[in-house]
Amino acid sequence: MTEFIPEGSRFHALSSPFPMKRGGSLIGARVAYETWGTLAADASNAILIVTGLSPDAHAASNADNPATGWWEPMLGPGKPIDTDRWFVICVNSLGSCKGSTGPASLDLATGKTYRLSFPELSIEDVANAAAEVVHALGIKQLACLIGNSMGGMTALAVLLQHPGIARTHINISGSARALPFSIAIRSLQREAIRLDPAWNNGDYDELRYPESGMRMARKLGVITYRSALEWDGRFGRVRLDSDQTDEDPFGLEFQVESYLEGHARRFVRRFDPNCYLYLGRSMDWFDLAEYANGDVLAGLARIRVERALAIGANTDILFPVEQQQQIADGLRAGGADTQFIGMDSPQGHDAFLVDYDRFGPAVAQFLQTLPTAA
Amino acid sequence: MTEFIPEGSRFHALSSPFPMKRGGSLIGARVAYETWGTLAADASNAILIVTGLSPDAHAASNADNPATGWWEPMLGPGKPIDTDRWFVICVNSLGSCKGSTGPASLDLATGKTYRLSFPELSIEDVANAAAEVVHALGIKQLACLIGNSMGGMTALAVLLQHPGIARTHINISGSARALPFSIAIRSLQREAIRLDPAWNNGDYDELRYPESGMRMARKLGVITYRSALEWDGRFGRVRLDSDQTDEDPFGLEFQVESYLEGHARRFVRRFDPNCYLYLGRSMDWFDLAEYANGDVLAGLARIRVERALAIGANTDILFPVEQQQQIADGLRAGGADTQFIGMDSPQGHDAFLVDYDRFGPAVAQFLQTLPTAA
Repeated sequence: MTEFIPEGSRFHALSSPFPMKRGGSLIGARVAYETWGTLAADASNAILIVTGLSPDAHAASNADNPATGWWEPMLGPGKPIDTDRWFVICVNSLGSCKGSTGPASLDLATGKTYRLSFPELSIEDVANAAAEVVHALGIKQLACLIGNSMGGMTALAVLLQHPGIARTHINISGSARALPFSIAIRSLQREAIRLDPAWNNGDYDELRYPESGMRMARKLGVITYRSALEWDGRFGRVRLDSDQTDEDPFGLEFQVESYLEGHARRFVRRFDPNCYLYLGRSMDWFDLAEYANGDVLAGLARIRVERALAIGANTDILFPVEQQQQIADGLRAGGADTQFIGMDSPQGHDAFLVDYDRFGPAVAQFLQTLPTAA
Repeated sequence: MTEFIPEGSRFHALSSPFPMKRGGSLIGARVAYETWGTLAADASNAILIVTGLSPDAHAASNADNPATGWWEPMLGPGKPIDTDRWFVICVNSLGSCKGSTGPASLDLATGKTYRLSFPELSIEDVANAAAEVVHALGIKQLACLIGNSMGGMTALAVLLQHPGIARTHINISGSARALPFSIAIRSLQREAIRLDPAWNNGDYDELRYPESGMRMARKLGVITYRSALEWDGRFGRVRLDSDQTDEDPFGLEFQVESYLEGHARRFVRRFDPNCYLYLGRSMDWFDLAEYANGDVLAGLARIRVERALAIGANTDILFPVEQQQQIADGLRAGGADTQFIGMDSPQGHDAFLVDYDRFGPAVAQFLQTLPTAA
């Protein structure tokens, strides 16, 4: 199957075998990553970014790849994550199809694409793979670990499993455990893919591809990434021009439908369906309470960082802001000097990718006040 | 196709031809309804209830049908809508499959089921059909018109198109125009049905039935009827017992998934897929602003009632509470003595069907203070 690897990607060869939390291991697996800025001689100025479900490691343009990245306004010289000061790493998640090993990658043991023979993937595996990159770059301790959305889960798993790996932490629109509402949405996305006959138990190809299932799954995702009020301001009830509509009696009619259709079309062939299934399920499984007899706050309180910031949007329905408040409460109970900010962003879960006027200054302020050395 | 008509339904034969807003007309069509209580000699104590997308006219048990209705705790002797005092009518929406004429009904002109030959359905048509029932029962003016969810749209259309038909109005979790977020969700529900090969352009039967499409559509509905925080309290992260799970690697695992599956299974064969498409689209089209040069508040202000109550739940993502605030603002601008209540119910859009501790007293209080006569 196709992988989608950005120009200029670097690769870290994971320890082999690389053990997986729920059983099995990977042989000869790798993680794709990119970097920005210069690592200080004492490696004290490093920041790691772990991402949401779909992004690659190309968070921003850099010397190896001048293309605009998915977090371009946040990362660069003089930007909130100031690469004049910090050495920044962004890793593509294990299990993804953007350069790191996942279900769309070749299984070196068989010479065939993994597909559903890829071992069950946990957020903890994604975290361990990211931590290996940090150590391989000669960094003993990150100045800050930043995680967004699914990356907020990954970051917590990194911190729990690798004590001392970071002095501080920024958790953005993340969560310490999957809520049943989010599980329900991801379960429905998986069902849409699995119901598509072309999915064929994961054995599809470019010609016979679960296009409809992926389109449904992506549209459902895009809907839950935003909020009702933001879309009202954005699309209102504007109709499509007559030359954009089709003859179908239940076809596209409103701009919002065309927007979803466009989003879906861009995504469907740019993300591997099996990877989507694996990554979504890894989020459903994630629960820091497993590490503290069912008490999620106690699980969070096992994490040791000096300072932390938890941010979210009050309109987020997928990772509600109460979950970022919970992260702040738990990290504070663990001894961290912690700040929580619930932003009045109308853009829901996607706010951190859009509302840079609010998220930028919050991140900038936190990082500016950090000492570079431990 | 199958219609699902409650025991003890009554029927009103609509005027024939019954003209439809977007063109065409119905010949020999009917509306199913039920009643509770006794109509006063001067017909001054009548209340009409118009419903959400899926309910039938059986809002509560009555002499003709002792089965529990969909709004049982709200309607009956001594209940918030007190049938010792009020004569209550509930109509099944035109276009539905619960006794009123719709796409699943026989077209008398052809002797065949309408299916997609049913004319385009608008909320205004649903409203006109409901108003005919009121007049046929000898009621010149309702003491109150109550509408929930889609019924909140229908009620506004009744009031606008039939000035003087009601002295007062209760709008519950309703809206004066469809928001793009809700349009997006309903569009995706329709896409799920239309993508199912068994839908076959509306030409399915019991053997070849769009089961998967309807299951997806219903699950998406159920997800958006609730809220993330309510489900956290209800389901948490409880797993299914091992004998409830299947062998499928991406099969059901969490209770919330099983809950959705159960809901979907109960619905899929109890609601006609074509009716679902028609009714959903009628909501998307609804916009009171059409009656006032694009100004929805001005559209609302054209409605004349003496008193009004608009209620909603602060956690509703499908018909956000700002829409009920808007209804209150508009009706007030039209001269009504209007009250708005945004309830702290965790149950989202479904709160009016569940949170009787909050919605019951609000409705009871409004009705108690009404004079029976004009």
